[in-house]
Amino acid sequence: MQEKLYFKNDYSEGAATEILEAFVRTQLEQNTGYGTDRYCRSAEEKIRKICGCEDAQVKFICGGTQTNQLVISTMLQPYEGVIGATTAHIAAHEAGAIEYSGHKVLTVPSHDGKIDPSELVDLIETFWNDESHEHMVYPGMVYVSHPTELGTLYTKDELTAIANVCKNYNLPLYLDGARLGYGLMSEGTDLTLSDIARLCDVFYIGGTKVGALCGEAVVFTKGNMPKCFVAQIKQHGALMAKGWVTGLQFDVLFTDELYLKLSKNAIEMAKLLKEGFVSKGYTLHVDSPTNQQFVVVNEEQLRKLREIAVFEVWERVDKEHVAIRFVTSWATKRETVEKLIEVI
Amino acid sequence: MQEKLYFKNDYSEGAATEILEAFVRTQLEQNTGYGTDRYCRSAEEKIRKICGCEDAQVKFICGGTQTNQLVISTMLQPYEGVIGATTAHIAAHEAGAIEYSGHKVLTVPSHDGKIDPSELVDLIETFWNDESHEHMVYPGMVYVSHPTELGTLYTKDELTAIANVCKNYNLPLYLDGARLGYGLMSEGTDLTLSDIARLCDVFYIGGTKVGALCGEAVVFTKGNMPKCFVAQIKQHGALMAKGWVTGLQFDVLFTDELYLKLSKNAIEMAKLLKEGFVSKGYTLHVDSPTNQQFVVVNEEQLRKLREIAVFEVWERVDKEHVAIRFVTSWATKRETVEKLIEVI
Amino acid sequence: MQEKLYFKNDYSEGAATEILEAFVRTQLEQNTGYGTDRYCRSAEEKIRKICGCEDAQVKFICGGTQTNQLVISTMLQPYEGVIGATTAHIAAHEAGAIEYSGHKVLTVPSHDGKIDPSELVDLIETFWNDESHEHMVYPGMVYVSHPTELGTLYTKDELTAIANVCKNYNLPLYLDGARLGYGLMSEGTDLTLSDIARLCDVFYIGGTKVGALCGEAVVFTKGNMPKCFVAQIKQHGALMAKGWVTGLQFDVLFTDELYLKLSKNAIEMAKLLKEGFVSKGYTLHVDSPTNQQFVVVNEEQLRKLREIAVFEVWERVDKEHVAIRFVTSWATKRETVEKLIEVI
Amino acid sequence: MQEKLYFKNDYSEGAATEILEAFVRTQLEQNTGYGTDRYCRSAEEKIRKICGCEDAQVKFICGGTQTNQLVISTMLQPYEGVIGATTAHIAAHEAGAIEYSGHKVLTVPSHDGKIDPSELVDLIETFWNDESHEHMVYPGMVYVSHPTELGTLYTKDELTAIANVCKNYNLPLYLDGARLGYGLMSEGTDLTLSDIARLCDVFYIGGTKVGALCGEAVVFTKGNMPKCFVAQIKQHGALMAKGWVTGLQFDVLFTDELYLKLSKNAIEMAKLLKEGFVSKGYTLHVDSPTNQQFVVVNEEQLRKLREIAVFEVWERVDKEHVAIRFVTSWATKRETVEKLIEVI
Repeated sequence: MQEKLYFKNDYSEGAATEILEAFVRTQLEQNTGYGTDRYCRSAEEKIRKICGCEDAQVKFICGGTQTNQLVISTMLQPYEGVIGATTAHIAAHEAGAIEYSGHKVLTVPSHDGKIDPSELVDLIETFWNDESHEHMVYPGMVYVSHPTELGTLYTKDELTAIANVCKNYNLPLYLDGARLGYGLMSEGTDLTLSDIARLCDVFYIGGTKVGALCGEAVVFTKGNMPKCFVAQIKQHGALMAKGWVTGLQFDVLFTDELYLKLSKNAIEMAKLLKEGFVSKGYTLHVDSPTNQQFVVVNEEQLRKLREIAVFEVWERVDKEHVAIRFVTSWATKRETVEKLIEVI
Repeated sequence: MQEKLYFKNDYSEGAATEILEAFVRTQLEQNTGYGTDRYCRSAEEKIRKICGCEDAQVKFICGGTQTNQLVISTMLQPYEGVIGATTAHIAAHEAGAIEYSGHKVLTVPSHDGKIDPSELVDLIETFWNDESHEHMVYPGMVYVSHPTELGTLYTKDELTAIANVCKNYNLPLYLDGARLGYGLMSEGTDLTLSDIARLCDVFYIGGTKVGALCGEAVVFTKGNMPKCFVAQIKQHGALMAKGWVTGLQFDVLFTDELYLKLSKNAIEMAKLLKEGFVSKGYTLHVDSPTNQQFVVVNEEQLRKLREIAVFEVWERVDKEHVAIRFVTSWATKRETVEKLIEVI
Repeated sequence: MQEKLYFKNDYSEGAATEILEAFVRTQLEQNTGYGTDRYCRSAEEKIRKICGCEDAQVKFICGGTQTNQLVISTMLQPYEGVIGATTAHIAAHEAGAIEYSGHKVLTVPSHDGKIDPSELVDLIETFWNDESHEHMVYPGMVYVSHPTELGTLYTKDELTAIANVCKNYNLPLYLDGARLGYGLMSEGTDLTLSDIARLCDVFYIGGTKVGALCGEAVVFTKGNMPKCFVAQIKQHGALMAKGWVTGLQFDVLFTDELYLKLSKNAIEMAKLLKEGFVSKGYTLHVDSPTNQQFVVVNEEQLRKLREIAVFEVWERVDKEHVAIRFVTSWATKRETVEKLIEVI
Repeated sequence: MQEKLYFKNDYSEGAATEILEAFVRTQLEQNTGYGTDRYCRSAEEKIRKICGCEDAQVKFICGGTQTNQLVISTMLQPYEGVIGATTAHIAAHEAGAIEYSGHKVLTVPSHDGKIDPSELVDLIETFWNDESHEHMVYPGMVYVSHPTELGTLYTKDELTAIANVCKNYNLPLYLDGARLGYGLMSEGTDLTLSDIARLCDVFYIGGTKVGALCGEAVVFTKGNMPKCFVAQIKQHGALMAKGWVTGLQFDVLFTDELYLKLSKNAIEMAKLLKEGFVSKGYTLHVDSPTNQQFVVVNEEQLRKLREIAVFEVWERVDKEHVAIRFVTSWATKRETVEKLIEVI
């Protein structure tokens, strides 16, 4: 039996070759623990540089949910909640990790995964205009993801508009960059890493989904890292003894633009795949410019595709159609995509 | 300048060669996420076998604090606390991670890091005999570590006595095995992995300090894994997307007894180091049979040792002496220990 | 200046005369603390009787938010959330008290404050059919209020339908009865206290808004009071030293049907007020059969009404109209309502 | 059968006559909710005056555990713990309410219920001198009670010394005054309410144990009331709809020094009782100057006393003796004490 073509997600393969080589090369070095090592220092410095943000404070955390819980709960006051789209990962797919830390997720409508600045203003104004707002959860932070859950991207203008709302209401803006590399390398995007660093108060650069074994780099851009943050990371169970494991990976990822190169492959493969589907007459569910592609299929098409490929059924579109998701990664091979396109 | 001899801890070096090779070998394999992959399955099976516990339920978590918080908070009722020694990691050095999850750490005296079954009974009986115990925190679990914070080990009789107390009062017994390998390979120990699996309700096999990049294997031995445990792992931010990163490492560690071989090196080096100190007239602070060795030094000795070696000052012994800690690991080289002994 | 006619809420006045008399009569009696006294026992027994539920377990809590937080968080597993209408008190107006206890509020649409059984099924089925539901918050309980936030009532058929959904999915049904008396005495209702006790797994009988100084009686109807509940009440800070203060009040409220008599006054006054508004040509915002009445007014009407009465502006209806809320209580006098109707 | 003489505690009787009269007098007044009423305002003002602290911020909370949880958790940073004596109510008898809010209780030795400033310094210095203090719980607040659990009192010098330590280390000092009145009216005390307001950053004046039905007045003395405190009270489930119920009681308690007069009776009765025991040859367990008296008895004495009186067995003193506790209150009658003394 032939192996199926695998497009299930971007965290299926191991680490980029350069990362594995670094682990081999440094095997017997002796590093100090808990993120105090030279690799963390070096990676932090490289990230500050590429972000064009000299004073950025950078910390490395093992995974995305952990990062979201940690950033949100340490930046909010106890009586505050975080605002996100109804489709936001923190609203729908973190198993209640934000609520576990005591905070409500306040939601605004999702527009293909993105939030709208005027709807954001509405939520905030409605809160402040309510005479009993002391009985409600205070809006305390705005959460966006880029790319979003649906692979879409904010333009520079869009993110600027959201950032302006945040500034007006004195709310920190947090960008979840689990797949940030794929956003940065998307063809049409006009939003750079330094734009993000300038517009957001905090964001993270995802490693797990972009070629690392594990690890996300949290970046506080305004000297606003929460007090005693290392103790708080520990308190959340998120402080790795071998902190350099994540530091080293990010040091490698941000050497010679590896992070961007890895991301670029996924984008190219996604484009190939998208064009293939379109050329074969398929309809797209969302017009995604990144490494997640959503295609509408009927039951017969679904059945046939399942015989040759692995992917996720995203959601029902109508009685006869569902949307399915194909994901490419830093490791996706051209021949795999081509084989898929050939047979659909 | 000559590099200093490094004995600061057992999480300074990278991963064992076999683990690095496995990462290289499997780089482009495509595994399903969140611990549903073949390596986790295989590692679980190997662990069940070596524990002699066919029905054991095994999960892999990234780090020790996370594991302690997760196991304790998911096994306790909200009104219960966990009992440990005053020196227990969860009592003193987890930055309040247990309290963050809503639970009190109830303490009994430490006897070189170990707890005494009769003092345990005292605490429990005092609670139940108190007419107002509904106003107190219920004892809900017993926590031991093996080796302890001070490198000491429970004998089979000692752990059996504690397990009997637990059984009598219907309290689960949890063993923190962050350095379990070093305990199992200690020369004089009569406590095996299958004893531990039989006597404890839950324990974890530490990977981070025994040759893995990261990872601990939690073992529930009585069909007692908390309900919807995967969701709870996620809720704590501890579910890794690339779950196979820990699964693969444990699969390798429990192939051809690698875990035990790695541990054995640390024990042999610790013995060499301990004998060296004793032969040179030093006093031991604790008589540790494992990879942490505690030596009493005066200020002059401390100063000299600091010139040649890296270690931790543990605690003050008296006005003129402090105890210092030397730690060996799976990666410690004989020549490093010999060089140290030579110059002290 | 004449005093304004007061319809702001049903917790403005003090306690019913019989309650005040009981406080005077028992002033120097010596009761045991923390709810172990004779008045709590007696009140519990009376509540069991009027509910037709011999085995009901009853506890008295000081206020409504506390009760909601306590019942929900002690009955849910950590990974579960509670389902309620988008307008539910716990979703919108408890300042995040549910999330503070670690749980998400999952929402279904509000139909004049009520939830629809088929939409409830949808939410539950969508969860269980989602392959990644381990990454989502488990539906763990259903919350309704009766009367709802909008004064509306469930019929016996409607509550039975919801209870059946709960039974099918093994979810406890919790009814928030902050204003329960007003629901029970509403003219058209066919839902009795014993129906509620039979259909719900837990509910509370509100005292604060029905003539007590403070206090709510929580009733567990299926032998399902959470383990060590007194310790958990204490842990939430909700165990009153003088527990008999609430017990005594409920003992009086359930003597000679005082609770129902007090409620009846509010209902009669609300009917008078409602008929008055309608007869003067006003439109109702919601057709409420209980003690909260919602009237649509334009700016001019609003201004005039504000000169003579105290009430709440509920929400904007359209550009020119807002809905305002008038609340009657056990203490509302006929002459106050008549005076209002006269001048509108 | 004759009724037993009751000395079990100071929360057995109802409210002072003046409070009951006020409830009757104000029965049909219409007050705004949630503590925004005139009685709360008036009581706050009176408390500011008697404390000699014009800018004090005052809030009324229903009970003591709630107050402790609320004050401690809203004033601490998430990574901080509160320091108290091993015997402190928050350490031993709050059913884990502090840990439930995420914070550890750090303990120093108890000296008849009091803490020692130099031992306090030790704990703080040990923390800051520990190189790994980021892995420990930060000392974030100091908790004392006055009177203590054992009825003892701090002198002005003693509390000043503790306050100085707090100031040096920038830690807020919190005084739990559940029985504050009894401390203020104790014969030998040199510590006044204005001393307390000056020395402490926050404290509460207990009502429940000093003649109120329920209620404690929290006083922030340095403009340091936590932000959005009303929302946080609500979030903890502690915001009473009829907030004026507590406000009114404190307004009465601080009119014509009622609070002090009520307290004085308990002190006089305690003195009578103490002298009685001593004159009959009994030994005191602690030399308490307030309304809790601790007497050492043997088994035979215990048996006899139990026939005539109700009290608590406090703790075992030695094989043959236990300490028992007698508590007087604002409502204790001279004849009850005299009858007891007569028969012992």
